[in-house]
Amino acid sequence: MKLARKVFGRPLKDREEEAIRVGVIAGLAVMAPDALSSVAYGTQEILIELDRAGLKALWYVLPISVVIALLLTFLVISYRQIIRAYPGGGGAYVIGRDTLGPTASLLAGAALLIDYTLTVAVSVTAGVAAVVAAFPSLAPWTVTLSVLIVAVLGLVNLRGLRESAQLFALPTYLFIVMVLVMAAVGLMEPVAHAPTWHSYVTPPLGTVSLFVILRAFSSGSSALTGVEAISNGVPVFRNPSPGRARTTLLLLGLFLGSMFLGTSIISYRYHIVPAANNTVLQQLAADIFGRGLYFYGLSIVTMAILAIAANTSFAGFPLLSSIMARDQWMPRMFLSRGDRLVYQNGIIILGLTAIFLIVIFQGNTTNLIPLYAIGVYMSFTIAMLSLAVKTWRNRKQISPVKSWLIIAMGSVGATLTAIVVLVSLVTKFTEGAWIVAVVLPLLIVGMRRIRRHYRAVADELRVTDLSIKPVPMRVVAVVPINSINRLSIDTLSYALSLADEVIALHVVRSIEPGQQFAERWQKWDPDPRIKLAVVPTQYRSVVRPIVRYVDLVAHQNTSERTLIILPELVVSHVWEHFLHNQLALTLETSFIFRKDISVLIMPYRLKS
Amino acid sequence: MKLARKVFGRPLKDREEEAIRVGVIAGLAVMAPDALSSVAYGTQEILIELDRAGLKALWYVLPISVVIALLLTFLVISYRQIIRAYPGGGGAYVIGRDTLGPTASLLAGAALLIDYTLTVAVSVTAGVAAVVAAFPSLAPWTVTLSVLIVAVLGLVNLRGLRESAQLFALPTYLFIVMVLVMAAVGLMEPVAHAPTWHSYVTPPLGTVSLFVILRAFSSGSSALTGVEAISNGVPVFRNPSPGRARTTLLLLGLFLGSMFLGTSIISYRYHIVPAANNTVLQQLAADIFGRGLYFYGLSIVTMAILAIAANTSFAGFPLLSSIMARDQWMPRMFLSRGDRLVYQNGIIILGLTAIFLIVIFQGNTTNLIPLYAIGVYMSFTIAMLSLAVKTWRNRKQISPVKSWLIIAMGSVGATLTAIVVLVSLVTKFTEGAWIVAVVLPLLIVGMRRIRRHYRAVADELRVTDLSIKPVPMRVVAVVPINSINRLSIDTLSYALSLADEVIALHVVRSIEPGQQFAERWQKWDPDPRIKLAVVPTQYRSVVRPIVRYVDLVAHQNTSERTLIILPELVVSHVWEHFLHNQLALTLETSFIFRKDISVLIMPYRLKS
Repeated sequence: MKLARKVFGRPLKDREEEAIRVGVIAGLAVMAPDALSSVAYGTQEILIELDRAGLKALWYVLPISVVIALLLTFLVISYRQIIRAYPGGGGAYVIGRDTLGPTASLLAGAALLIDYTLTVAVSVTAGVAAVVAAFPSLAPWTVTLSVLIVAVLGLVNLRGLRESAQLFALPTYLFIVMVLVMAAVGLMEPVAHAPTWHSYVTPPLGTVSLFVILRAFSSGSSALTGVEAISNGVPVFRNPSPGRARTTLLLLGLFLGSMFLGTSIISYRYHIVPAANNTVLQQLAADIFGRGLYFYGLSIVTMAILAIAANTSFAGFPLLSSIMARDQWMPRMFLSRGDRLVYQNGIIILGLTAIFLIVIFQGNTTNLIPLYAIGVYMSFTIAMLSLAVKTWRNRKQISPVKSWLIIAMGSVGATLTAIVVLVSLVTKFTEGAWIVAVVLPLLIVGMRRIRRHYRAVADELRVTDLSIKPVPMRVVAVVPINSINRLSIDTLSYALSLADEVIALHVVRSIEPGQQFAERWQKWDPDPRIKLAVVPTQYRSVVRPIVRYVDLVAHQNTSERTLIILPELVVSHVWEHFLHNQLALTLETSFIFRKDISVLIMPYRLKS
Repeated sequence: MKLARKVFGRPLKDREEEAIRVGVIAGLAVMAPDALSSVAYGTQEILIELDRAGLKALWYVLPISVVIALLLTFLVISYRQIIRAYPGGGGAYVIGRDTLGPTASLLAGAALLIDYTLTVAVSVTAGVAAVVAAFPSLAPWTVTLSVLIVAVLGLVNLRGLRESAQLFALPTYLFIVMVLVMAAVGLMEPVAHAPTWHSYVTPPLGTVSLFVILRAFSSGSSALTGVEAISNGVPVFRNPSPGRARTTLLLLGLFLGSMFLGTSIISYRYHIVPAANNTVLQQLAADIFGRGLYFYGLSIVTMAILAIAANTSFAGFPLLSSIMARDQWMPRMFLSRGDRLVYQNGIIILGLTAIFLIVIFQGNTTNLIPLYAIGVYMSFTIAMLSLAVKTWRNRKQISPVKSWLIIAMGSVGATLTAIVVLVSLVTKFTEGAWIVAVVLPLLIVGMRRIRRHYRAVADELRVTDLSIKPVPMRVVAVVPINSINRLSIDTLSYALSLADEVIALHVVRSIEPGQQFAERWQKWDPDPRIKLAVVPTQYRSVVRPIVRYVDLVAHQNTSERTLIILPELVVSHVWEHFLHNQLALTLETSFIFRKDISVLIMPYRLKS
């Protein structure tokens, strides 16, 4: 217990809840890394796709980045609306539920839960891979290190979000500052062969197919994954939570947008072409600052932000799963909050699933990367569509200009994000996107079954008629007994206290000792309510005949309750426990599989 | 359950016991590998020690081997006597107990138990090491392979000894035949520079110190470890067990003696000097038959016999530990026999301890080899000394010549074996023998504490006065209740059936809902014997307030029994179980640490 307190911190009272929530600064440190870390690969993904279509196609990074930045603007505006409407969190799932109905909301919710899990696995292994690339001798420890990091993230989050915020604020803000400084210097510095102003706005000669542009757009849009996290986790902010969440989201949008656009523009300015051994960010740092302190500093901070992107999932998953559990789509255990006021089961399940994925894929999770943009963009589509539909329904209450603006923005945004989903599904189907097409429907079917089960149980257990009262029943207690001693006398006393009828069960392997025991019993004559049953067996183990006999008693008296009472010696030292109680242990586990019979363990405290 | 039956075989009735025992042929296959495998290194150990003293010293392998063979003769005669006197098995431990008292017998018993465990770890890893030497690509799997082999040995032995005998008969007899054929051919074949008859019986010029000879003798005497196994495991033989055991021991002695002596003599004849890359057996095979089929065949069979030497321990350990458990030196669980009529706990503990050693030493168990000759020779010394003392005490009943012969043999044998113990302890103290000097006393102290505990408990529980009868006590039942529904009504009904007083415990986090519940409860008015207790808490988890409240009730009514009743939903599908019963599970584990209170789980079977 003391160890638990050391690891998880002291139990918190309900009224201390406010104290463990976060403000804007800490909130950004928890909620932003997932989105910000996309800057590490967003521009690069676009360049990789365009590079295949020839050097001239690289120009298209500019308009594509502008469209993605526009989409980001739409998303930030939309989610700020959603946060205001749903201060309890839940984002796309909740607005989808209230606007489009259960199917759309389940799709959004399930897609996001999958996405959070994938994010943990992918970002942790990406961080570890970067470290291993720097220190190749660590290679055999890839999986172990990844699993350890997930475990540490889980433990920190079991203590509470605030603690993880403190831990991860430094790398988050350092990453923001370093990328922005690099973008600013990169825009200002004179460069040989720098593109002229004209070349920024004029498409190059020669045509690039629409398909290439769409694919580059959908790949680059992975830069926006993580933007939804704040809308799911509104309650982690201090009061007024929606206000702080909206401010945090606005800041996130500004940082993310300027970092992403800045990176894209200076990549074009410095004629960056994707390379195998250095990322686009590293190439930029090398070109602008040389391979010095800045280059290595940015590399390390990028590594860090990739790894702690996983932490955003630990904030989002437990909250979203608790909201979905409240709607009975998920097991009730995701609703329970422990002594640290966190949804510990969500944290534990998220950690274990991510560890499972890491072990299954042996730390090589690049195959999983295409999967998770799809989930996020499904939830984006549902969120923006819902917002448009909701605004249309409430258009009477809002000013016409504003409502039409929101409807237009929602429709355009939903169309753009739907394009990303479709293009990703089609182009990356064989690379792993098919998994989404398999897992997502399965998850939704499972969630529907869970709800159906809960409803059926609730219907069965519901009592409206208060005239139904508890009524005592006849209880038969079976007490396995080996010899007459203080332990068995105490157990029989307990059985007499509880039951209407007590059966002392004595199992024998041959007739003679059975008769001797029966004679001694008759001489003892303990109580008229106790009957002795001597049961012969041909087998060694007494477990089988006891289980059979109790089953028989339970079967004969279906109107009664059958109870088996087993004594357990309580010893003063732990090691002494192994000297006793083997039978009680075996019998208890045997009856776990025979659920209609109760097993009562009677503790007997030894004086010696 | 079906799976268990597939793995372990169908349950056996008591009267089927005879059918699963073994005869002489199968018995030798189980009991001999430990002793026979010593041939693989016995002669080699002598040669290594002598080689250090110069090439001429190698001659001493002849007299030393003769003395060891003489000792083997003494051991076989002695243990045949012991088997006759103790047909229940237990060897040195039992005769030591009845003759020299508890200290000597504990020493013999504990030493043998340690030895059996070491044998499993050492012989399995030696076998795996030989395989890895042949297939170096398996090197990273050394530990995994060793652990797997121990697990398979354990499983086979849980099915029964007969099955393992069938499995291991072929390599055992093949090894005997191949070594004997090699010895015979090696003695007959003409060899260049073969020693003359004269050189066999005349010591070479130059002196070899007594210490070198003693050390070579004690190293070579490791060839006799395993001879004691049959005396411990007499009951594994078919009736008449002692007769069959004695025949098997005689055969073992003849085979072991001729194989060992033969190997030693032909090593001298072929001028074998210990080499790093080939064992003495391999060198002999290469010299006599060339590096062909025989060489490789013998190498593989040697590997096999080393690995299955571990199986002898699986026959000896469970039997010896059951005999020592009957004398209360070991936990009672070693006495219980399961449905396959084997002492399953002995098998499981032996397997787990060996696996633990293998993992701790990372499959490199050469350090453990010096340890186990010490244990065996301690038991040899105690066995022969006991036999001499016992014969002296009974000398009136036996013919004087026979009794004096046995006394002389026992004394000489005990002296020789005691020399081995002392020399090994001294010369190998820093190599690992100190572990024996630490572990053995600890084990003996532990065994004495176990016996003391059992005696104290038995004294405390014993009832001689049959006027003591079971007396019912007042029982208070606490039922945690969340709302009024069929489940809680059923649980309260059960509580009413069992207890004299029922407390319905409702935990609330704020005052208002508590008052609402109390009002609804009053309207319901279930039963005058049920009291409602509304308990407020400032924490999230309801486990803590429930545990505290029950502790309080138990504390206030020390003359009564306190019971906590928890309902558990019995669902039709396994996955549905994860949707319920979280609280019951948590509470149950919480009360495991509060042993004075009983927890009763009431199964509630859902219709849906």
